[in-house]
Amino acid sequence: MTTFHIAPLNNDITAALQHKIDSKTKPIGSLGQLEKLALQIGRIQQTQTPALNKPTIVVFAGDHGVAHEGVSPFPQEVTYQMVFNFLQGGAAINVFTKQNGIAIKVVDAGVNFDFNQHPGLVHAKVALGTKSFLHEAAMTPAQCETAIERGAAVVKELHEQGCNVIGFGEMGIANTSAAAVIMSLLCDIPLEQCIGRGTGLDDEGLIRKKVILAESMIRHNKIEKTPLNVLSTFGGFEIAMMCGAMLQAAAAGMLILVDGFITTSALLVAAKINEQILDYCLFTHQSNEQGHSLMLAHLKAVPLLSLGMRLGEGTGAAVAYPVIQAAVSFLNEMASFESAGVSNKA
Amino acid sequence: MTTFHIAPLNNDITAALQHKIDSKTKPIGSLGQLEKLALQIGRIQQTQTPALNKPTIVVFAGDHGVAHEGVSPFPQEVTYQMVFNFLQGGAAINVFTKQNGIAIKVVDAGVNFDFNQHPGLVHAKVALGTKSFLHEAAMTPAQCETAIERGAAVVKELHEQGCNVIGFGEMGIANTSAAAVIMSLLCDIPLEQCIGRGTGLDDEGLIRKKVILAESMIRHNKIEKTPLNVLSTFGGFEIAMMCGAMLQAAAAGMLILVDGFITTSALLVAAKINEQILDYCLFTHQSNEQGHSLMLAHLKAVPLLSLGMRLGEGTGAAVAYPVIQAAVSFLNEMASFESAGVSNKA
Repeated sequence: MTTFHIAPLNNDITAALQHKIDSKTKPIGSLGQLEKLALQIGRIQQTQTPALNKPTIVVFAGDHGVAHEGVSPFPQEVTYQMVFNFLQGGAAINVFTKQNGIAIKVVDAGVNFDFNQHPGLVHAKVALGTKSFLHEAAMTPAQCETAIERGAAVVKELHEQGCNVIGFGEMGIANTSAAAVIMSLLCDIPLEQCIGRGTGLDDEGLIRKKVILAESMIRHNKIEKTPLNVLSTFGGFEIAMMCGAMLQAAAAGMLILVDGFITTSALLVAAKINEQILDYCLFTHQSNEQGHSLMLAHLKAVPLLSLGMRLGEGTGAAVAYPVIQAAVSFLNEMASFESAGVSNKA
Repeated sequence: MTTFHIAPLNNDITAALQHKIDSKTKPIGSLGQLEKLALQIGRIQQTQTPALNKPTIVVFAGDHGVAHEGVSPFPQEVTYQMVFNFLQGGAAINVFTKQNGIAIKVVDAGVNFDFNQHPGLVHAKVALGTKSFLHEAAMTPAQCETAIERGAAVVKELHEQGCNVIGFGEMGIANTSAAAVIMSLLCDIPLEQCIGRGTGLDDEGLIRKKVILAESMIRHNKIEKTPLNVLSTFGGFEIAMMCGAMLQAAAAGMLILVDGFITTSALLVAAKINEQILDYCLFTHQSNEQGHSLMLAHLKAVPLLSLGMRLGEGTGAAVAYPVIQAAVSFLNEMASFESAGVSNKA
């Protein structure tokens, strides 16, 4: 597989950044998480005057064979219908990116639909959806590798165009099922705790989902639990592409805006491949999907927002983006005690 | 005292709003608190297409006699120095309001400094700071009334200019002391639980603050605990002005962005005067100042952000504002299942 070289953050600038933060006209520490964000962003960019350039959210769409086992209350066709909704600007992610000045890019990672050429759509389809992992591996190792590379390629191009802050979102009916199994295997957390209601299963549907996923894990219990095996056996093309995209983003020194349950499952795989990636991640929100809080705890991540959202598409990252801007703004624009002529603490 | 007539929200539009929210292309409830916000804002404005017009944050500054008893690590002069910082655009609130397209208005409610006329400053000074409530009432009932009226007048003018969403912030060395006593008396919570480190007291300073405030409460234990008595005995001119400003904002049907510990103490007084005001309040964040979480619980308020901030000035409201915009944006701009041709849940 492609190797991603991710540089560890060096500490040369840390003391100077902290001094700058502490000299601002405010009590020490009084901007809470914004101060931690400013420090992290300054360290990633190795500057006391960081900048957020061409912020972009890439939405990867893919279909899942397991959708046909009845693990979602929505039919599979909703995946391609939502892709059209993204392209027409009517989805939640369109509204939030537009509001906050974020560019959006939609990628067909593997939707079960033949899209015509569309100027707004990146055609990176690996196949017309994955196989159902209740019966066989979702994808072949070669397909998985292709998806990772194509995800990385999308990010490489955006980075070359000047983007240095990137979020990822997804669309794919049944992808909370894929993410739950990935989580269970890579975090070593009982499957039961990883499975939630997704787009809104009722109690009966939730039980069915639990049974299907438990059976699926038993079917594949012989595989060696490497991150790539887990990804190809249970993942989706959109999850594999996000994994490659995130690894490439960190390799390029970009800020990574981590969204909710599915996106974080892609990060779990990426972090098992190269845990250095975590230094580049900003955790934008805690999803209301069962399991996400445990996923974040596994990564020792403190999310910025906790608004009970569970929509996917990158919406948490888009809504949280102004908070990240606030961290950069205060670091660059606030006066210091000295420059403002304000007396400091006795 | 001036009476503020605050209309109860009527429910005529609630069902239509909820239907509109639920028909958007997303799983029911998947935007979490944003959906509750959209419903509340739609109800306040009695429309399915609410708008946020001329968002403004008013920062009231005032000095406190009790500052001279050593309850803050910062000297009193910082209040007027920070007013100059606001006017020069160098404070945190300037940076965050600028970032998010919010107008800012700075009001001298009672700073211990003679400002010359300044085009950016509203001169509403009641006196050169309050008296120390360790020895006597902070202000006279007449001064308290004046402050409430002047706060209301500032809001009345902004409303006439077209503003329909307003936040309040404050600056005043020692004002966490005033707010802590107000909280204890109006929420009936032991003083100990209401007192925090403010701008950063060390352990010794915190003990001193607790002793001074406990002695102050004993000195005035004979007063009848009406909201106005509590406000005039322990409050600050900036707190009294915020109280009047909030009452006027609700009377005018505006959205009120509630900030942190001091601002919420002003709301406690206002809500004891007319609890109808709470329907108009959006609680923007939970401050890291000890006591604020209990204050919010007393008001049954769920804050939007919890970023460990404790800076005052209205900074929590300013940073949270884009989240409120997101609620309005999705309600106005997202496609419905029908308009986008997306299949709904089976």
